[in-house]
Amino acid sequence: MSDRDRKPPFQRGGGKGPDKRRESGRRPPWRDRDATSPDGPVILYGWHTVAAALANPQRQIRKLWLSENAARRLADDNIDTRVTPEIVRPSLIDQRLGPDAVHQGLLAEADPLPSPDIDTLPQQGIVLVLDQITDPHNVGAILRSAAAFAVKAIVTTARHSPEATGVLAKSASGALELVPIVSVQNLARALTELNDQGFLTVGLDSQGSEDLGAVKLRQPLALVLGAEGKGLRQLTRETCSVVARLDMPGDIKSLNVSNAAVLALYIGASRLGLMG
Amino acid sequence: MSDRDRKPPFQRGGGKGPDKRRESGRRPPWRDRDATSPDGPVILYGWHTVAAALANPQRQIRKLWLSENAARRLADDNIDTRVTPEIVRPSLIDQRLGPDAVHQGLLAEADPLPSPDIDTLPQQGIVLVLDQITDPHNVGAILRSAAAFAVKAIVTTARHSPEATGVLAKSASGALELVPIVSVQNLARALTELNDQGFLTVGLDSQGSEDLGAVKLRQPLALVLGAEGKGLRQLTRETCSVVARLDMPGDIKSLNVSNAAVLALYIGASRLGLMG
Repeated sequence: MSDRDRKPPFQRGGGKGPDKRRESGRRPPWRDRDATSPDGPVILYGWHTVAAALANPQRQIRKLWLSENAARRLADDNIDTRVTPEIVRPSLIDQRLGPDAVHQGLLAEADPLPSPDIDTLPQQGIVLVLDQITDPHNVGAILRSAAAFAVKAIVTTARHSPEATGVLAKSASGALELVPIVSVQNLARALTELNDQGFLTVGLDSQGSEDLGAVKLRQPLALVLGAEGKGLRQLTRETCSVVARLDMPGDIKSLNVSNAAVLALYIGASRLGLMG
Repeated sequence: MSDRDRKPPFQRGGGKGPDKRRESGRRPPWRDRDATSPDGPVILYGWHTVAAALANPQRQIRKLWLSENAARRLADDNIDTRVTPEIVRPSLIDQRLGPDAVHQGLLAEADPLPSPDIDTLPQQGIVLVLDQITDPHNVGAILRSAAAFAVKAIVTTARHSPEATGVLAKSASGALELVPIVSVQNLARALTELNDQGFLTVGLDSQGSEDLGAVKLRQPLALVLGAEGKGLRQLTRETCSVVARLDMPGDIKSLNVSNAAVLALYIGASRLGLMG
């Protein structure tokens, strides 16, 4: 289930070769199209997750396994299954996912959603940038918060295995269908491109020079979060416009990364007048 | 690993018998002393978790398993092991905890910490009340945020198995040693006692009547959170002084429970001037 060994190696020098130079106005040749798993499938399970996937016209469903109860519930809610479901016993889904997965009688095999190009991001609002955050529970919770705060996209280096995507999608509670994920191979290059596009790139780090609440924020804003324990990598930190900390009054000075993300989103959205 | 079957059944009527009436000024006979697992042990693993336990004089350590590297690291950091450690191969700790536990060569068996009585809570600051939140990752992340925001205590009905406490303690990253946990059998009674003690008890629920940011807060404040999916139980909701929602601008209107907790803590601590 670990996706750690799938992480692209970190290229310290930025890896710019002659064929990799950015040419403005043209599609950069290092566009990271192949950073997402091109083959799929993605495994989706659980009521919210599968119902949201069925409601998303961009999501190609390959297969759908439903328990009798789940099929009835979808019919009661007038949710179109789009493909002919296989009605199965819940124990068959248990076998497929393991005993700890709360699938509520729904499992779908689907294509991954397309990964938008980084230069198609809107010039307003907030994006989240995740620096090697691979734990699927954390990424899922972050996606859910991102959808709650109307984040425009998540930029990430992490590619997830189908199994990890299942856990991630379940933790995201439908948000995987709502927040575009821009998958890149080199985060420092992606940050440089965001800087060039006019984003204010703010890294979050307990060693940051000022409290996030004191930073003069503006749109478009990119909030950059590092992995549990490791924090932001050095080149990530150096490429951000600002590195800020989250001041808190207690004895512990760092939060679970999804907790730090939601706090940064709240502070960012409140200060930018984006709370609706 | 599930602790769901250990949850005390919910007593709707409040369960007040003649021998259970609160007598003011005396220790209520329904004091929930036996709600914590009296036997233990608690399994603690991982660097932050075990180092914090060794630094806590209230924590009785029964056994300590260390890898050679971990023993050296503790010695380098001048951390007293308090009991004679058994030096073991990391694979032995793997066997004990399962392959997914990141133990960093440290495992301790310890006594559970004492559960303070609810009438010993200070008449200032913030406490968190958890209504049947049992997922140990979520409770651990909430504990960590509670320590970061200098929360006075966590009041909870959930009793955790030793295995679940291990996961919880690891997610809490040392915070289990910092935030007192008041374990109660009946949450509605505990909330009534908090109300009687002068706490403002604020339940968080997406169906709340006003946004938390608009509620007139005061100390001592109790923020009450319900379980993922189920939310606050009806009697919990009815016993809170106020039920508030967290307004957010996006398409998803509910957060992962630990994300909701940290946001409520930030809003509460900021509004009460407790950010230090």
